[in-house]
Amino acid sequence: MSTAKLIGIDWGTTSFRAALMDGGGGIIDRKASGEGLLAVPDRDFEGVLERAVAGWDEGRALPLVASGMVTSRTGWVETPYLPCPAGAGELAGALTRFTTAGGRRIAFITGLSYRNPDGAPDVMRGEETQIAGLALHGLRLAVMPGTHSKWVRIDGDQIAAFRSAMTGDAFAALRDHTVLKLTTADRIEAQEAFAAGVAIGAAEGGAGLLGKLFRQRAGSLMGDFPAYETAERLSGLMIGTEIAEARSFAPDVDRPVVIVGGEALAARYGVALDVLGIAHETAPVDAAFAGQFRIAKAAGLV
Amino acid sequence: MSTAKLIGIDWGTTSFRAALMDGGGGIIDRKASGEGLLAVPDRDFEGVLERAVAGWDEGRALPLVASGMVTSRTGWVETPYLPCPAGAGELAGALTRFTTAGGRRIAFITGLSYRNPDGAPDVMRGEETQIAGLALHGLRLAVMPGTHSKWVRIDGDQIAAFRSAMTGDAFAALRDHTVLKLTTADRIEAQEAFAAGVAIGAAEGGAGLLGKLFRQRAGSLMGDFPAYETAERLSGLMIGTEIAEARSFAPDVDRPVVIVGGEALAARYGVALDVLGIAHETAPVDAAFAGQFRIAKAAGLV
Repeated sequence: MSTAKLIGIDWGTTSFRAALMDGGGGIIDRKASGEGLLAVPDRDFEGVLERAVAGWDEGRALPLVASGMVTSRTGWVETPYLPCPAGAGELAGALTRFTTAGGRRIAFITGLSYRNPDGAPDVMRGEETQIAGLALHGLRLAVMPGTHSKWVRIDGDQIAAFRSAMTGDAFAALRDHTVLKLTTADRIEAQEAFAAGVAIGAAEGGAGLLGKLFRQRAGSLMGDFPAYETAERLSGLMIGTEIAEARSFAPDVDRPVVIVGGEALAARYGVALDVLGIAHETAPVDAAFAGQFRIAKAAGLV
Repeated sequence: MSTAKLIGIDWGTTSFRAALMDGGGGIIDRKASGEGLLAVPDRDFEGVLERAVAGWDEGRALPLVASGMVTSRTGWVETPYLPCPAGAGELAGALTRFTTAGGRRIAFITGLSYRNPDGAPDVMRGEETQIAGLALHGLRLAVMPGTHSKWVRIDGDQIAAFRSAMTGDAFAALRDHTVLKLTTADRIEAQEAFAAGVAIGAAEGGAGLLGKLFRQRAGSLMGDFPAYETAERLSGLMIGTEIAEARSFAPDVDRPVVIVGGEALAARYGVALDVLGIAHETAPVDAAFAGQFRIAKAAGLV
């Protein structure tokens, strides 16, 4: 058995994941639970952490790095955003060191901020570590689908810029809390409906969303499509809009878009990119732990 | 006292309004309640109606016209949409006659449908009657703000085309059911924040909404503006986006946009149009009853 050299914690709002790694970043053991930050009672983050890693490191001697929303305002230890451009080296230089009541030392990896040319700010927490784990080089564009999707422009081995879209969050709110809920409850898988939505969303450079949303209701009322397709059309509409919005973000990138995310959502984005004729490839999973290892190594922790 | 000649009912999802009118369309008496269609128990529409108009017309002899969502699938009597172009004359020719169990005769005014040049459908129910009541002539553009705002292109005395936007419905869903809810709960009036939101929403021809939404969260996190301004910024963002989406809808209209709606919302849209330098005027209220009178007259009911 390899010798354990590092513990990595990927702690988000709704999930907790931990990995015990060896000196080459190989994963010896792992834990996962639904104990996301919102599920931690009385801010007992230390208790949740110690129970999760019990048996890995009784002496609390291994270095431990943590990334994700755990460093946000609603997390355990809030850390300031690091401005772009930044990669594993910059993140290693900006670790926040913390010692728990029980004496365990934690190095928190902070998130990144980016100022658009017009001054509007954008932020991420957790995705920077996943990107570091991909070890992409050259000029690339990655998409990280989710509640707040990120489109990330990678230059060299740094994140040069990024752009978030409230796609998943807005999708769920619109599906469940607008007039569309009258027909989205009876959802069925319908790839053609999804593809139609993608094309509508991406039309006009992604503009016109408020009108397009209403027309999904009107189309159902007018019998243009079956009501039970509404949820899939809405999903496509939102993702198509997101892709159109992101398209102008990195026009000089001529390599395939790298999809970084869970299997189901990555597949959905793959279909959407196909509909729009945009080349793409899928990143390996577990990028978060790989990123933590690289950052820990750059910081001399391993 | 004038002689009563017509009863008008404006029955929406969340409100009920009735007017007793004389032979010139003057309003003799009126009733209003929160007994919208969703509040009617056991589909007892007749009971709600009769209680509301009790004392006006014991003999049930007066003609009665009704408009609004009362003719929708979730209303009392569903009527098919009438395609554009249509005005008071066409609506009068498409009345749906109905006699209640108690022997009262009702003429339901139906809604309109419109097919965009790309084939996508749009629908309205109730707004067509308000527009008929305005008796606008010439080439005009009217905005009817609300849950599902309508932008209406009037040509001669007909509605030539229209475009809906899910502005109010989406605003409420996004405010209450996304990450933005963390700061929108503490809402304060802040006209500068609203104006900033309008400008952001209207930028890029209204494109980029999913990114702009997230940046309202990012801006609050980065300290660019106080968190308690988020709701006003979001309201401005949505209305600014709607106006930008509608702008391309009637580029040949060179007269002020006519705002048709309740006082508070009309004022908010007035501010937004001012921010964007678009001339506007406000329509008189009670257009629904005036429209019902015109349509009833065109149908020979008065």
